[in-house]
Amino acid sequence: MEQLTCYDCGETYPFGDVTRCRCGEPLWFETDAAAFDWPDASDGSLGRDALWRYESVLPATTPTGLAAAAGGTPLFRAPSIESTDGPRVHLKVEGVNPTGSFKDRGTAVGISRVDGPVGTVSHGNMALSVAAHAAAADREAVILVAEDTPDSRLAMIAQHDPHLFRVHGEYGRLYHDTLEHDLGAAFLNSDAPLRVAGQKTVAYEICEAFAPDAPDAIVLPVSSGGQASGVWKALRELDAAGLLTATPRIYLAQTARCDPIAQAYRRGASRVEPVTGEPTAAVSINNADPPSGNRALAAVAETDGGVVSVPEEAMLAETDRLAADAGVSVEPSCAVATAAVRDLAAAGEFGPGDDVAVILTGSGYKYGETEPDTSSVREIDRSDVPGAVRDAVS
Amino acid sequence: MEQLTCYDCGETYPFGDVTRCRCGEPLWFETDAAAFDWPDASDGSLGRDALWRYESVLPATTPTGLAAAAGGTPLFRAPSIESTDGPRVHLKVEGVNPTGSFKDRGTAVGISRVDGPVGTVSHGNMALSVAAHAAAADREAVILVAEDTPDSRLAMIAQHDPHLFRVHGEYGRLYHDTLEHDLGAAFLNSDAPLRVAGQKTVAYEICEAFAPDAPDAIVLPVSSGGQASGVWKALRELDAAGLLTATPRIYLAQTARCDPIAQAYRRGASRVEPVTGEPTAAVSINNADPPSGNRALAAVAETDGGVVSVPEEAMLAETDRLAADAGVSVEPSCAVATAAVRDLAAAGEFGPGDDVAVILTGSGYKYGETEPDTSSVREIDRSDVPGAVRDAVS
Ligand SMILES: [Zn+2]
Ligand SMILES: [Zn+2]
Repeated sequence: MEQLTCYDCGETYPFGDVTRCRCGEPLWFETDAAAFDWPDASDGSLGRDALWRYESVLPATTPTGLAAAAGGTPLFRAPSIESTDGPRVHLKVEGVNPTGSFKDRGTAVGISRVDGPVGTVSHGNMALSVAAHAAAADREAVILVAEDTPDSRLAMIAQHDPHLFRVHGEYGRLYHDTLEHDLGAAFLNSDAPLRVAGQKTVAYEICEAFAPDAPDAIVLPVSSGGQASGVWKALRELDAAGLLTATPRIYLAQTARCDPIAQAYRRGASRVEPVTGEPTAAVSINNADPPSGNRALAAVAETDGGVVSVPEEAMLAETDRLAADAGVSVEPSCAVATAAVRDLAAAGEFGPGDDVAVILTGSGYKYGETEPDTSSVREIDRSDVPGAVRDAVS
Repeated sequence: MEQLTCYDCGETYPFGDVTRCRCGEPLWFETDAAAFDWPDASDGSLGRDALWRYESVLPATTPTGLAAAAGGTPLFRAPSIESTDGPRVHLKVEGVNPTGSFKDRGTAVGISRVDGPVGTVSHGNMALSVAAHAAAADREAVILVAEDTPDSRLAMIAQHDPHLFRVHGEYGRLYHDTLEHDLGAAFLNSDAPLRVAGQKTVAYEICEAFAPDAPDAIVLPVSSGGQASGVWKALRELDAAGLLTATPRIYLAQTARCDPIAQAYRRGASRVEPVTGEPTAAVSINNADPPSGNRALAAVAETDGGVVSVPEEAMLAETDRLAADAGVSVEPSCAVATAAVRDLAAAGEFGPGDDVAVILTGSGYKYGETEPDTSSVREIDRSDVPGAVRDAVS
């Protein structure tokens, strides 16, 4: 588990020597997964051992403390949002990770592997995750956020007591800055090999839940391409282990206001070009120059999947619908994934016999609105409660 | 599983006939648990099946949708907050339930058992939980909140599209109003028998994680007494099933600003008297007249536990400490529990050989601060990042 490989040119490197392949593409941990089998159902620990139940294919050993709690999230079928001729929809709710997003998987694996200070470049979910896990592991954390990050989000991160920097200037370059300079901290950025190794566990969990069958497709939002890479890596490993009856197709969803990977997909390219995005409520996937974009495209091509752009209004409507119809509060960045399922079903990509697993990457409860909408609240006196309640439900 | 019993006088009732015992005390579901054993580790579903893995001792059957995802929360040891001569501290993080609090357990069981509209009287966590689960189950929900409930919290609840009423007038009486009137909705209030049945599963999970041993103590915040009742019920059932080597002691924690159960405990009473509380940041446990207070006191007495009052400043400091040292963001109402552990260790109740499980009832991420504290944020230019980061971690 000490070797990094390039998915594209096949080059290998010892872990720790380089941050990218000399061909320019990102690296991931090579895993000898051929001997992997689903673990015995229990080792005595309960339920949320799930991420660490795949320890044999991870570059870290099971930790103590918060990192032990990452992953093992619920997957459930949500008939209330299925359309009549559409597929069975299974929601993988990553918002119930310890800090409310899928990022805890990669952070938990990363921090369990490296020593000393850790860092990250992030607007939100990853910043919170790295700050919390560093606090639990008694490590210093360096968090670099963009200058437009709202105070409320900064305060949430600050409670975990990191070194917290709001960076003025071209934020997009910071990702590369942290790879190029030796900053004295291990940066667990969005597509770092350790993070991708952790992120892959979500697909292990999904596939194990369907074993011995497999879902027909896995649909997820894409930003840097790190999580998409993790899903693809997991499917390759499970294929190698002979644990998939068929390989699930990987479908990625973007906001139409910032969709470089979808644009490359539509023009049949194997390389993603940077775009100039427009402002969008999908802040967590607003990545105009995704560092693992090419790898995400390859994941789609190799699994016969696709990439979908979702218009802003459809995304916001889908966010509301998930809360009102599925009982799941998500950030808008997640809602592109279930919106994409509807589009793909309408286009005939999914039929009523298909099982589609959708990764909902982050909780909507974390980010309160600056102008809360209370228009549906009714003000009444206590004495009027019985009549008002009976009227409401009759 | 159709019979309700009174823990105090032993009277029994069919489910559905009454809301309280004629002696005045609350009822719970009687469970024939003598034949219960820890379930086979896996039925093929993964990880977060946990609440429903105890289906044989629950008054409902495994549902589809969001309710299937309740429970199965992580329990991990947190050495970073253990004191030198104190016990081993194990955190049960209930904030990772689907709506961010322990309330999802009772809501999931309740809504899976009753038909038609559901309702609740709550300031926050329970309101959000009932609204979300009703949305997922395509049920109408009636949510009654107090007139001082902040708009941000109302907006969070409103996204799940319930009938949402802000009630002006004496809020404390609403709990009783909903029991006394036939409102056309099943009110899943804090200590309703169905809710207590769901809440007990947290203690099943804790004890199963320690099996074949048992923790020495379980420590939790107490408000209405419903969750404390659930923990006690679980321990009684597991004792009856022969699955506990020793019965864990139940310790309850309150805010000193509203501590009717602690006051009764200190005066050696078996009955709780209402108090006039003072304003406190512990909004979720600010209950001056707890409907299951006597039952909570009985749980403590029968298990040889205790009740602790935590001063406001100590509670707020403990909230900060959990975030900064354990990486866990909680609402202040939870922090009384770990603060109580420290007090009890200092008083000699817990020693270094003891295993103490602490139930952290709700996430702190859900409730952003109205005046976010960003005093620790440093503003820098991108060009200064390398130097500033190296300085920070050196
Ligand atoms: Zn290469
Ligand atoms: Zn009675």
